[in-house]
Amino acid sequence: MKAVVITNAGGPEVLQLQEVEDPQIKDDEVLIKVEATALNRADTLQRKGSYPPPPGASPYPGLECSGIIEQVGKNVTRWKVGDQASPAILLSLLFFYVCALLAGGGYAEKVAVPAGQVLPVPPGVSLKDAAALPEVACTVWSTVFMMSRLSAGEMFLVHGGSSGIGTFAIQIAKYYGTKVFVTAGGDEKLAFCKDLGADVCINYKTEDFVARVKEETAGKGVDVILDNMGAAYLKRNLDSLNFDGRLFIIGLQGGATAEINLASLLARRITVQGQPTGPPMSGQPNGLVMARRGDKGAGLRNRTPENKAVIVKEVEKNVWPAIIANKVKPIVYKYFPLSEAAEAHRLMESSKHIGKILLVP
Amino acid sequence: MKAVVITNAGGPEVLQLQEVEDPQIKDDEVLIKVEATALNRADTLQRKGSYPPPPGASPYPGLECSGIIEQVGKNVTRWKVGDQASPAILLSLLFFYVCALLAGGGYAEKVAVPAGQVLPVPPGVSLKDAAALPEVACTVWSTVFMMSRLSAGEMFLVHGGSSGIGTFAIQIAKYYGTKVFVTAGGDEKLAFCKDLGADVCINYKTEDFVARVKEETAGKGVDVILDNMGAAYLKRNLDSLNFDGRLFIIGLQGGATAEINLASLLARRITVQGQPTGPPMSGQPNGLVMARRGDKGAGLRNRTPENKAVIVKEVEKNVWPAIIANKVKPIVYKYFPLSEAAEAHRLMESSKHIGKILLVP
Repeated sequence: MKAVVITNAGGPEVLQLQEVEDPQIKDDEVLIKVEATALNRADTLQRKGSYPPPPGASPYPGLECSGIIEQVGKNVTRWKVGDQASPAILLSLLFFYVCALLAGGGYAEKVAVPAGQVLPVPPGVSLKDAAALPEVACTVWSTVFMMSRLSAGEMFLVHGGSSGIGTFAIQIAKYYGTKVFVTAGGDEKLAFCKDLGADVCINYKTEDFVARVKEETAGKGVDVILDNMGAAYLKRNLDSLNFDGRLFIIGLQGGATAEINLASLLARRITVQGQPTGPPMSGQPNGLVMARRGDKGAGLRNRTPENKAVIVKEVEKNVWPAIIANKVKPIVYKYFPLSEAAEAHRLMESSKHIGKILLVP
Repeated sequence: MKAVVITNAGGPEVLQLQEVEDPQIKDDEVLIKVEATALNRADTLQRKGSYPPPPGASPYPGLECSGIIEQVGKNVTRWKVGDQASPAILLSLLFFYVCALLAGGGYAEKVAVPAGQVLPVPPGVSLKDAAALPEVACTVWSTVFMMSRLSAGEMFLVHGGSSGIGTFAIQIAKYYGTKVFVTAGGDEKLAFCKDLGADVCINYKTEDFVARVKEETAGKGVDVILDNMGAAYLKRNLDSLNFDGRLFIIGLQGGATAEINLASLLARRITVQGQPTGPPMSGQPNGLVMARRGDKGAGLRNRTPENKAVIVKEVEKNVWPAIIANKVKPIVYKYFPLSEAAEAHRLMESSKHIGKILLVP
């Protein structure tokens, strides 16, 4: 098969489409013929050499995909081998049109994945666009909902509202009856967030988000924040939280080391939690060492297949109905052929996009 | 009735037993004839003027008590007026021998309290010693169990193992099948913790608790930490936690402002939470201001009666069976008459005691 190989650690140009061996499935895995894969920021870190795949994972990048089941391991009961030529619609959606959360290997024509990480393509979503769903759905559900327990009537702030994570978080948080605040760095991005349902759209380049949050909440603050900035926003995030507020940090784009005033934490019974979507300190060696401590990282990618299966099951139960009801849609900015992975990485690193960037073999 | 009055903000000598008006109950309250009250560190802060009672609460100190129901409001159905002279044993324990979580006023002969904050005296515990239970049980249950979800098979570290909170936490954590680590500042205190069931006893004056925790957990760390030191221990606490570890901070005896490395938080999916047992920054004005923001503080004392009732109900359901089974006992260091409240405060401030200090009218 063909796959995108990281020929050396480096810039986008190190990504090259090459002929490689087909993956072999284990008894509890399925082989997916990839229809599309989606970019994640972690892929750019892997390309630079600062986020090696977990032990046993594919060496090729790609943390999610959609496609058709081509082979099933002998312990797999749920999924069936599909035939793209003549699928009955219902059967195809139930058994062999799928998308999946991967530990790697999505930038390829085929990928092997544990059956528990596979989800059916929701009716109403194209097989291709379904590739945009697994990472954002699993990340947002496992953090904002499973851990931070965002619930109806609460107020929710997501930073980077126009990112893949952000565009998904806005929709699912609205579906669950919360008031949604977003920050983003431009009017076009904020307008997009507004169209997706965001209630309060804050341009972080021209506005103080703490002041705006206070103003919009009668001085109380929001209940849950999903943050990708880490140190740079820590104080401001704490200042933006209501009593019993929860801050969930999934990225450290604004650094890792900050001063914290525990008095403000205690005074409002605040919870601070973290889970990296990439290595916790992007490009900083000691963060990487910590993330890999005991061969056991903290992000979705480094969770065990059993652990991922739990999250995937919760996502199917709680997120898929929202997609089927057409209330949550995959947001795709651009499709590239697999051979243009380098160009796709350049776009991601420019941060000009809104939503997800897809690669199509 | 007689009550201990804080005649001025100041040292223990400002506490004076005086004749005052009896408290009046509201429709959803009961009047308790106090058998005993217990000291909490927050009482010493109230005495110094840095922890004023919440609006509507008694001006006298005392956050818990035991005693006999003397009067019930017209909306109260569970509790009955008792007669100490001739109680049938079963009836007395069910309906009128009680202990209670108070917003203040325990240092008195009588106290009014919302019915939802009252608990029956558990069989096997003397009416007097039951005064040692409400604050520690509600604090430890609401933090370590309800919030941090300590569960069987996990490892638990409690700092200040010989304190009232510590001695209770050791016992209830053992009852629920966890391995218990404690720190304390002396061999006598540590020996006491050991007798209560603590598995690993660490003298913080002579040992590095991080190293010892690592050594005893094959390098992994503990799952939950209950901390009263705040800033001084923040880094060391984070370093002592396992993957998915939870740090619950209930005191800032070691200061409020610290540097935090969010990378270590994310790398091990750590949760940091806080709830003050006193004003969050003891004696520091801005902490106090924050704790009182919007007339709504974060500690047990400042929770609404409805919120306290939820915790008290959970405590009766989950902690009382452990006490009835004789697996968790109130630890009382010394009894003082109410007239010697000043002496009792001096003892607490010396930190020479183990467990709770009681005052008996």
